[in-house]
Amino acid sequence: MRTVNAIAATSATDPLVRTTIERRDLGPHDVLIEIRYAGICHSDIHTVRAEWGRITYPQTVGHEIVGEVTEVGSDVTGHAVGDRVGVGCMVNSCRECENCKAGQEQYCLEGNIQTYAGTDRDGTITQGGYSTHIVVNQDFVLRVPESIPYEAAAPLLCAGITTYSPLMHWKAGPGSKVAVVGLGGLGHMAVKIAAAMGAEVTVLSQTLSKQDDGLAFGAQHYYATSDPATFKELRNTFDLIINTVSAKIKMSSYLRLLRLDGTFVSVGAPPEPLEVPAFALIGARRSFAGSNIGGIAETQEMLDFCAERGIAPEVEVIDADRVNEAYERVLSSDVRYRFVIDVETLR
Amino acid sequence: MRTVNAIAATSATDPLVRTTIERRDLGPHDVLIEIRYAGICHSDIHTVRAEWGRITYPQTVGHEIVGEVTEVGSDVTGHAVGDRVGVGCMVNSCRECENCKAGQEQYCLEGNIQTYAGTDRDGTITQGGYSTHIVVNQDFVLRVPESIPYEAAAPLLCAGITTYSPLMHWKAGPGSKVAVVGLGGLGHMAVKIAAAMGAEVTVLSQTLSKQDDGLAFGAQHYYATSDPATFKELRNTFDLIINTVSAKIKMSSYLRLLRLDGTFVSVGAPPEPLEVPAFALIGARRSFAGSNIGGIAETQEMLDFCAERGIAPEVEVIDADRVNEAYERVLSSDVRYRFVIDVETLR
Repeated sequence: MRTVNAIAATSATDPLVRTTIERRDLGPHDVLIEIRYAGICHSDIHTVRAEWGRITYPQTVGHEIVGEVTEVGSDVTGHAVGDRVGVGCMVNSCRECENCKAGQEQYCLEGNIQTYAGTDRDGTITQGGYSTHIVVNQDFVLRVPESIPYEAAAPLLCAGITTYSPLMHWKAGPGSKVAVVGLGGLGHMAVKIAAAMGAEVTVLSQTLSKQDDGLAFGAQHYYATSDPATFKELRNTFDLIINTVSAKIKMSSYLRLLRLDGTFVSVGAPPEPLEVPAFALIGARRSFAGSNIGGIAETQEMLDFCAERGIAPEVEVIDADRVNEAYERVLSSDVRYRFVIDVETLR
Repeated sequence: MRTVNAIAATSATDPLVRTTIERRDLGPHDVLIEIRYAGICHSDIHTVRAEWGRITYPQTVGHEIVGEVTEVGSDVTGHAVGDRVGVGCMVNSCRECENCKAGQEQYCLEGNIQTYAGTDRDGTITQGGYSTHIVVNQDFVLRVPESIPYEAAAPLLCAGITTYSPLMHWKAGPGSKVAVVGLGGLGHMAVKIAAAMGAEVTVLSQTLSKQDDGLAFGAQHYYATSDPATFKELRNTFDLIINTVSAKIKMSSYLRLLRLDGTFVSVGAPPEPLEVPAFALIGARRSFAGSNIGGIAETQEMLDFCAERGIAPEVEVIDADRVNEAYERVLSSDVRYRFVIDVETLR
């Protein structure tokens, strides 16, 4: 066991505080990573505030993790000391179910082991990336291409793969019309990636306040969802809508923006169910689907894709002591577009 | 104009009565059909009772129509006097939108013209198949293969194509696991067709009362949805669920029966929205979709498929005077599995 510096929540209501946490000794298949940067995802806030269910405190969150390998277990083959690596939303899975075997570990039938607030194979509660070091099984460690700066790589491990995976699965590309609902951390990555894939991208945001950004990221159109005319004008338009907004939205309006055989994909979810009129689906053989991050191989593919295409998130790097302030700004949508903690400030 | 015998609703609450209706003179592209049999679909009842919106009375319904061509317009090429033909749920469409051009007239962006209670191109209200004759544009007339008896062919025009189309679209076949929710008029066709396609078919019905029938139609498994154990045992099982039940069901339970990338398709819809928890979709990249009948070419393909495979619905042929009684029996699920009106009894 080794004791490392970290930031943790001690209750659902108190601010996060500096503390120390334990990391396990390296097993033969483990990699020790000295963390350099950790992104702040809205899920981190939901988790520490117990909005997605009760958790055990203290809890360190963070699942957009990048750093350098400083030690490897005896049987590690894919990673070496000095490698630039990343860890995303999961750190293990059963590896034996049909989904794991198909490289879709995120859909492990036993439930993948989440990077934080999950129950690890040894029964301990997993602790996330707002810390100086992490020990992870080699198979859940990604290679970060040289051309992506560390701080820009971090958000790719969640915001990047969460949007890349459905864009690939539903074949965004030349000739397809893709709408992205919400231009936050996930939304801005969805726009950049979909545009790089060759799709015609439209942003659907509450207001036009981020229009210049959206167009700069590669969107060709930008509409305000607060304007009812948007839903009239865009009816039967999109092949794919990626919904990055976790709030409850009026599904009947959004579904009708899909053309024949179009798919509306939610990558986040409000706690309460969404109200879906079946007629809105039947009228054009539309689908309402959900997508959860991506598999490990696909996450590597996404990192390599972003490196090749020069795609990187827009980040605001902060010191560790500003995490609580950053949480408030995330909640008031005052971030363009992802906070990333400089973990050097935790040492 | 010609006056023909028919059965019509005169209000949302009164029984249907014998009456006469007008059929237009044959245009150059029209076909006159002497109707032999007309199926009774639950939609007929919803429509005459104004449960799907206000309609104009008197209204003749029926969109599962088969009979013989007795006259053709001057420019008719595909049909000749004496041909055995059928007409389904639509009698025209705009023919110019992208969906019509793709052979998906059922999804016409202008709205296809429904066989009854629709507004025809000449502004009149369309009248359905509970009548001795109908005049239909040649492009919306199907050929009924010799090997399918007239009375068995009728329900294929709605119940058959409504289930065949999603089974084809979502690729039911050898190696795929298909569940059919509800074993009524649509459900029993879904079972027969899916089994003929080579899928492993499971019926999910409220009780086990029709289990022997379901297995005889080709299902390999039969479960009662009134038993909570069903939803536990079948979790993560199906590639495709065809929902033929129009009542509101607990979507969170049904969606979790789908395995990775599975699709739940509704072919009917309750008036109120369904409550869909996005997490149930996200957890296994599941989809909730809708499907509306099928295109004309696809309907012909379905008829030919049923002829080749010897698939026919189970029908109970009734005299025209028993339509009101049949409606009551449909509403109490006392039909195995489709009523078909012998239109000779209307002459």
